[in-house]
Amino acid sequence: MTVFSTESFADHEQVVFVSDAPSGLRAIIAVHDTSLGPGIGGCRMYPYASEEEALRDVLRLSRGMTFKAAAAGLDYGGAKAVIIGDPKTAKTPALLRAMGVAVDRLGGRYVTAEDVGTTVDDFAEVRKTTRHVVGLPAELGGSGDPSPTTALGVFIGLGAAARYRWGSHRLAGRTVAVQGLGNVGWHLCRLLADADAALVVSDIDPGRAAQAASAYGARVVEPEAIYAADADIFAPCAMGAIIDDGTIDALRAGIVGGAANNQLARQEHGFRLRDRGILYAPDFVINAAGMIRVASEIDGFDQALVDRRVARIATTLQAIFERADADAITTEAAAMDIAGQRLRAARARNAAALAT
Amino acid sequence: MTVFSTESFADHEQVVFVSDAPSGLRAIIAVHDTSLGPGIGGCRMYPYASEEEALRDVLRLSRGMTFKAAAAGLDYGGAKAVIIGDPKTAKTPALLRAMGVAVDRLGGRYVTAEDVGTTVDDFAEVRKTTRHVVGLPAELGGSGDPSPTTALGVFIGLGAAARYRWGSHRLAGRTVAVQGLGNVGWHLCRLLADADAALVVSDIDPGRAAQAASAYGARVVEPEAIYAADADIFAPCAMGAIIDDGTIDALRAGIVGGAANNQLARQEHGFRLRDRGILYAPDFVINAAGMIRVASEIDGFDQALVDRRVARIATTLQAIFERADADAITTEAAAMDIAGQRLRAARARNAAALAT
Repeated sequence: MTVFSTESFADHEQVVFVSDAPSGLRAIIAVHDTSLGPGIGGCRMYPYASEEEALRDVLRLSRGMTFKAAAAGLDYGGAKAVIIGDPKTAKTPALLRAMGVAVDRLGGRYVTAEDVGTTVDDFAEVRKTTRHVVGLPAELGGSGDPSPTTALGVFIGLGAAARYRWGSHRLAGRTVAVQGLGNVGWHLCRLLADADAALVVSDIDPGRAAQAASAYGARVVEPEAIYAADADIFAPCAMGAIIDDGTIDALRAGIVGGAANNQLARQEHGFRLRDRGILYAPDFVINAAGMIRVASEIDGFDQALVDRRVARIATTLQAIFERADADAITTEAAAMDIAGQRLRAARARNAAALAT
Repeated sequence: MTVFSTESFADHEQVVFVSDAPSGLRAIIAVHDTSLGPGIGGCRMYPYASEEEALRDVLRLSRGMTFKAAAAGLDYGGAKAVIIGDPKTAKTPALLRAMGVAVDRLGGRYVTAEDVGTTVDDFAEVRKTTRHVVGLPAELGGSGDPSPTTALGVFIGLGAAARYRWGSHRLAGRTVAVQGLGNVGWHLCRLLADADAALVVSDIDPGRAAQAASAYGARVVEPEAIYAADADIFAPCAMGAIIDDGTIDALRAGIVGGAANNQLARQEHGFRLRDRGILYAPDFVINAAGMIRVASEIDGFDQALVDRRVARIATTLQAIFERADADAITTEAAAMDIAGQRLRAARARNAAALAT
């Protein structure tokens, strides 16, 4: 393993290996790009098989956060942290506080949050040794559960996609297939039902799916049947990498857009969606509202500002769809390009400021 | 390569990989231990054959600085930085300023200084983007050339060794073989000559050796003949790793002590010196006065405080010599042990402070 030549190194500003012998902490904090502002990103805890695997994961995720924040119009950058270890056995208050110390030592260039393998309660412990934490419940000084906001952003984004595809943002009468009824998927169903959309849902937990049926009149299908469901919109809100050769062939929807991260199995699947005439709302754009909400905690939470920024997901997606069609590229490539433009402009401004 | 399992990782608090694409900067900053205070250490620039080699070097050197600062009684920790690249071709003002930004991002936990492959002029550039630089000339806000202070520390340390070995710290009438007439070696010769010691000197530059002959009446020998010179004290002030199987057999001196870093080729050579009855003043203790001087810049340079701390090198060496004899260990092991004691006490204090 080398750090600088790891595939996703991609000019990370800082990759920090931290350790604390007494608590057994071994973690990697990757700060990809702070041209726009401090790097925000979750802190995972996972029993990585090797240090190389942990490094690849954190670099890839950190870079993703840069583009997510940039596309959302936030003046924040991308970062991520991984703690190497089994959250079931190795997670102790001392380890979490040591992680807080490690975060604090970066002086606010990395702002951490809950992620896979960590919980809000864990971050109450992390918060004891650093103030650079977002996404906490209100009683711990945060802005509370971001899931409803993420769902709202997806809902608004689907409206923008519908308008681009069908000429109207209205989802009344449209059928939406929602994959996964976790926090975000559930709130999305509520918003869609309120807007008089019809719902088809699947979840690995049949009980949860039954709840959606009774609460929102959703039609329940088996998890593997959701791709081929007779729907106008497919909204992946569970796992990543679900858009692949097989599922693209099965899809009957005209729009794909949902809360899941890294929906495309590979870049080329963006082209395949385009070839099939399916409009894809890039995941890191349409699911950014949660990040928009927690980021607003940094300068003092402001609901009105959050609302304005979440509403802007619609105009950003419109610009992305237009760019993709104008340049005959995928919507993901267009989104990266638009985010990249903001980053390049910020870097130029920063360089100019430094040179004076 | 892995970072956490690299031999010299030794529980480094932070190992930071930094990059700056526009200037081509790729550097590693290792902050080993800040239990006592911010980590101080030079910033090397070297065309490392691989990232692994750079990592091993910076980890080893950073850890060494922790013990050097701790043994010197300083409330500072150990750190070091390496820039990967050829200082002759890749060193640009933009790269040096980018390195300053990287140092600054650690918020003062790493304080940098000139080292192999970097110059005081380079640090005038680094200083533009971070204030966490020491060892600059007075006109750039520093305390000036630390070499005379390092030489004074070695001189005082040799006096302490002489007293332990021969009952008197006075070096008048003693013969000292000085290897290397760089800045520190030259100033050491001056101090020794002023104290009426006799000098045998060697340098790879015959002209420099001839200057010492004329200035201080030194006897000049060929570089390879300095080990076997008829002298009471051997003072290595050039390269490291010069105390090895061959040179230990050749030595006729009763004391080894000088300004060079990492004088012992391997740990076991400390035992071989002990077996031969040669008193070895551990390099990182006797050569610490330069660090003592530059460290004092952090809280505002104070010549009187520096003088007191440099004088304390004698009492520290006395304690080390006594401990080594009492426990039948090498003086190097005794020095590590005494420094380790300070570190453990600081960690316990810090943990207690954090727990309240």
